[in-house]
Amino acid sequence: MLPRLDLDPQSATPLYRQLHEQIRSAILAGGMADGDRIPPTRELAQSIGLNRATITAAFDVLESEGLIRREVGRGSFVIGAVTQETPSTISFSASRPSEIMFPLDEFRVTCREVIDSDDAAQILQLGPASGYGPLRRHLLNEARKRGTAGEDDDILVTSGCQQAFDLIQRVLAARGETVLIEDPVYPGLRNAFLRGGARVIGMPVGREGVEVDALGALLEKEKPRLMVLTPNFQNPTGSTLPVESRRTILTLARRAGVIVVENDLYGELRYHGAEVPTMKRLDESGETILLGSFSKIAFPGLRVGWAIGPKHIIARLTEAKEASDLHSDQLSQAVVLRFAESGRLSAHRGKMLTAGALRLKAALVACGTELPSGSTFTKPEGGMNVWVELPRPLDASELATRAERENVSFLPGRYFAVTRPQVHGLRLSFAGLTPENIRHGLSILGLIFRTEQQRAQRRQSGEPAPALV
Amino acid sequence: MLPRLDLDPQSATPLYRQLHEQIRSAILAGGMADGDRIPPTRELAQSIGLNRATITAAFDVLESEGLIRREVGRGSFVIGAVTQETPSTISFSASRPSEIMFPLDEFRVTCREVIDSDDAAQILQLGPASGYGPLRRHLLNEARKRGTAGEDDDILVTSGCQQAFDLIQRVLAARGETVLIEDPVYPGLRNAFLRGGARVIGMPVGREGVEVDALGALLEKEKPRLMVLTPNFQNPTGSTLPVESRRTILTLARRAGVIVVENDLYGELRYHGAEVPTMKRLDESGETILLGSFSKIAFPGLRVGWAIGPKHIIARLTEAKEASDLHSDQLSQAVVLRFAESGRLSAHRGKMLTAGALRLKAALVACGTELPSGSTFTKPEGGMNVWVELPRPLDASELATRAERENVSFLPGRYFAVTRPQVHGLRLSFAGLTPENIRHGLSILGLIFRTEQQRAQRRQSGEPAPALV
Repeated sequence: MLPRLDLDPQSATPLYRQLHEQIRSAILAGGMADGDRIPPTRELAQSIGLNRATITAAFDVLESEGLIRREVGRGSFVIGAVTQETPSTISFSASRPSEIMFPLDEFRVTCREVIDSDDAAQILQLGPASGYGPLRRHLLNEARKRGTAGEDDDILVTSGCQQAFDLIQRVLAARGETVLIEDPVYPGLRNAFLRGGARVIGMPVGREGVEVDALGALLEKEKPRLMVLTPNFQNPTGSTLPVESRRTILTLARRAGVIVVENDLYGELRYHGAEVPTMKRLDESGETILLGSFSKIAFPGLRVGWAIGPKHIIARLTEAKEASDLHSDQLSQAVVLRFAESGRLSAHRGKMLTAGALRLKAALVACGTELPSGSTFTKPEGGMNVWVELPRPLDASELATRAERENVSFLPGRYFAVTRPQVHGLRLSFAGLTPENIRHGLSILGLIFRTEQQRAQRRQSGEPAPALV
Repeated sequence: MLPRLDLDPQSATPLYRQLHEQIRSAILAGGMADGDRIPPTRELAQSIGLNRATITAAFDVLESEGLIRREVGRGSFVIGAVTQETPSTISFSASRPSEIMFPLDEFRVTCREVIDSDDAAQILQLGPASGYGPLRRHLLNEARKRGTAGEDDDILVTSGCQQAFDLIQRVLAARGETVLIEDPVYPGLRNAFLRGGARVIGMPVGREGVEVDALGALLEKEKPRLMVLTPNFQNPTGSTLPVESRRTILTLARRAGVIVVENDLYGELRYHGAEVPTMKRLDESGETILLGSFSKIAFPGLRVGWAIGPKHIIARLTEAKEASDLHSDQLSQAVVLRFAESGRLSAHRGKMLTAGALRLKAALVACGTELPSGSTFTKPEGGMNVWVELPRPLDASELATRAERENVSFLPGRYFAVTRPQVHGLRLSFAGLTPENIRHGLSILGLIFRTEQQRAQRRQSGEPAPALV
C-alpha cells in the first residue's frame, strides 16, 4: 500500500524529490511489498493534488533505482522491496543487466509489430548464414555512420558474442595458433580459444586496460596470430584502454602482422566521461574485427550479436557459421532490428545509462568506505564490473565461500585467471543490483573482509586466532 | 476475382469437390491472380446458397494444395496462381516446407501468448546452456512416452540439427576420429564433420537405406568412433531403413563399440505406411544419440532442435554448447514449446501430412511418366525428397545447368557425394512445391532428360548430333 504522503510545497526540496523519498523509504523500510500497486500517474495526480509531471519525475527516479516497474495503462508495481523474513542472496556474480530493467512493455509491442508484419513468413523460413538481411543492412549502416565500418568491411550476425569468439577461433586459430587475450579475462572468451586448441597467452591488464609497455616484447616472443581485446569497460576489470594505448597497440599489431579482435560488448554503456574511439575506427589498415551485441543493453536471452571486419575474413567466418548452425534465429533478429529502428533501443539505453550511473556510483562509494585498508579497486566510467584487489594475504576464493554463508556472492579472481593466479582479486558485478542492495551487500562483504584481515594480522603477530563464526 | 460458379447438386461429384475444382481451375488457368481475395466462408455460403461446411471442405483442399492462404476473419487469398508473363523458377532444390504452408496465424497467436505471459522476463534473461527448462522437460517427457528416452537419458536443446552435428563432431570426433556417414548425404552433415577434421567414410545408401551387408566389414576395416544415420526418409534419397536393418546395425555397432547418432529430422513426416521404431527405441544399450527438430514441420527460421542421449554424453555436449554460443535463443524456444503444448503443432502437422501426401504422390506419378527409360527412383513414404538415378551416360550436373535455363532447378547427385561420385543421381525436393508445379516442373525436366538421352544415343550410333537449343 502507498504510504500516507506528507508533502510540503514550501520546502526547499522539490516536490518530486519529496514524493520519491517517501515512497522509496516506504519500500525499503518494508512498508510496501513486492507486487504492491501504485496507481497510474493520472489517478495519483488527482488524489494528492499534484501536477502529473511531478509524479512522473518521481517515478522515473524510482524506476531507475530498480524499486518499481511501470506497466503501460496499469500503473506501477513495487519490485525492490526489502523482505525481512527470507533474506535472498545479493549476487555480485553476474555481469548482466537487472531483470527489473528489462523493457518488457516495449519488447511486447516490438514483438507484436514483427509478428503482425508482412515479413513474418520470411522470418519463419530458412535464412542466410550471414544474417537476416534487413538487420545486417541496419547494423552496417550504423557502423558506417560511426566510422566503425569502411568500404572493405562486411558483417556477420552471430548468436551472441560468444559465437563470434568461437567462429574466430575456428577460422583463424584452429591449428594451435597462439592467441593473446587479456589477463584476467571473461572465462567464456578464454575457454572458446582453449577448447579449440589454440595456444592462449595472457596480456596483463591494469587499471588502464592492457599494459602496453611489455606488449612489443610479448608479440616478438610469442608470435601470435590474433589478439583479442575489450578496450571499453573490460570484463572483469571494468578498465578502459586510453586512446594513445589503442593507437600504440594497433601500430605494434600491424608491424607484427597480428589480427586485432575488438570485443565492444560494453561500449554503449558509458555512464560518464568522454567516449574513446573504437580501435576499429582508429585502425587505418581496416584489418580489425569488431564484435558487438544487444545482450548487455536489452535482451541477453535473445542471442543476437555481430562481427564487422574485412570482407575476406567475414566470408570465411560466414562459412564456418553455416557449418555450425546454418544461421542465427530469425525471429530474434527481426525483433532486435525493430527495437532499434523504432527508437525504443535508444530510449531504453537512456534508462540503462541513468540506472547504471546510480549503480556504479553506489558501488564505488561503498568500495571506498567498506573495503579493508590496503585494498585497491578500478574506477570504471561504464559497463557492469568493478575489480577489487584485496591486500595480502586475503584470498578471494576463501572469502567468497564465507560470503556465500552470509548470502552475498561474487566471483573470485581465480575464475578469470589466464597466466597470473589472481589470488587476491575479485569481480563485483553491480549492474544487476539496486543501489540499496549494492550498499547493503558491500557492507556485509566489508565486514567479512575486514574481520579476516584482523585475524590474519593477529596470526602474523602471534596472537591466538578467535574461532571462526 | 472468383469465377462464375456452376454447381450441380444432382451430380455424383460431391458439391465440395465441384466447388474445389472450379476455383482450382480458375486459379491455374490464370483467371485468378495471386492476392485475389475469396470471401469468408460465411459470406460465400450465403451468396451461393451452400452449407458453410461444404465451402470449408473445399477450401481445406485448396489450402492443402497450396493454392490459397486463409486468414482468420479476412477470407482467403490466392497464392498459387500461374502467371504467364514472368515464369518463375520451379525449384526442386530446397528440402524445406513450403512458405505457403507456414502456420502464420497460429504462429502469431502463439507468439502473443508467450510475450504476454509472466515468463517473458525470464525469456529475455540469459538462460541455461542445456536449454529453456520448460521446453527441455516437455521434450524429454514426450520422448519418454514414446520410448525414445530412458532413465539414463538427458536432453540438450540445440540451434537446429546442424548445431547438434557440429557439437557431436567437437566432442566425439575432434581428434581426427573416423566417422561413418551415409553416401549420398546431406552436405551440411558431411561438412560439419569434414571441417572439424574428422576422417569421413561413406556407407552406401540404397532404396532401403544404408546397405547392411557390407557394413560389418566396413566397421572392422575403418574402426570408426561414430556412425551417423537418418533412418527415416533420408536426405537426399528419401529412403527408410527397415526395422531388421536397424536391429542389425545396432548389433554391429555395439559389437564394434561405435556410437550411433540417429538423425530423425523427417520422422514426423510419414504420409503413409506403418511407422518404423526409431533406433534409439530399439537400442537396449541406451547409447544411441537421437536428434530432432521443429524445423521441417513448422518453423525452419526458428532454430530449435535437440539431442537426446546418455547423460554422460549430453553433459559433454552441453559444455561444448556453452563454449560455442552460451545457449540457444530463448524466445524461439518458448514459442515452439507453446506451439506444441497448445495442440497447434499436432493440428499443423495434420495439414502438413495431407499436403505432403498429395505432393509426394504428384512427384512419384510424374517421375513414373516423365523420366527417360532406364531411370530409377526411390518411393519414399514421407519426408521431402525423391532420389532419381538417370541411365548412363546422362550427367545430372550438366542437365541441372540446362534445366536452369528452362527455369527449373534441382540439385545433382555430386552435391551429396561422399565417396561415390553420384554422376547420374539427382535429388528432387517436392515438399515446397504445389502438386501442379511438381507436375509442370517434372514435365519440363522429362523433356530435357529424354532429349539428351536421344542425343546421346545418336552420338553412340554415330549419327550427327543436332545443335543444342
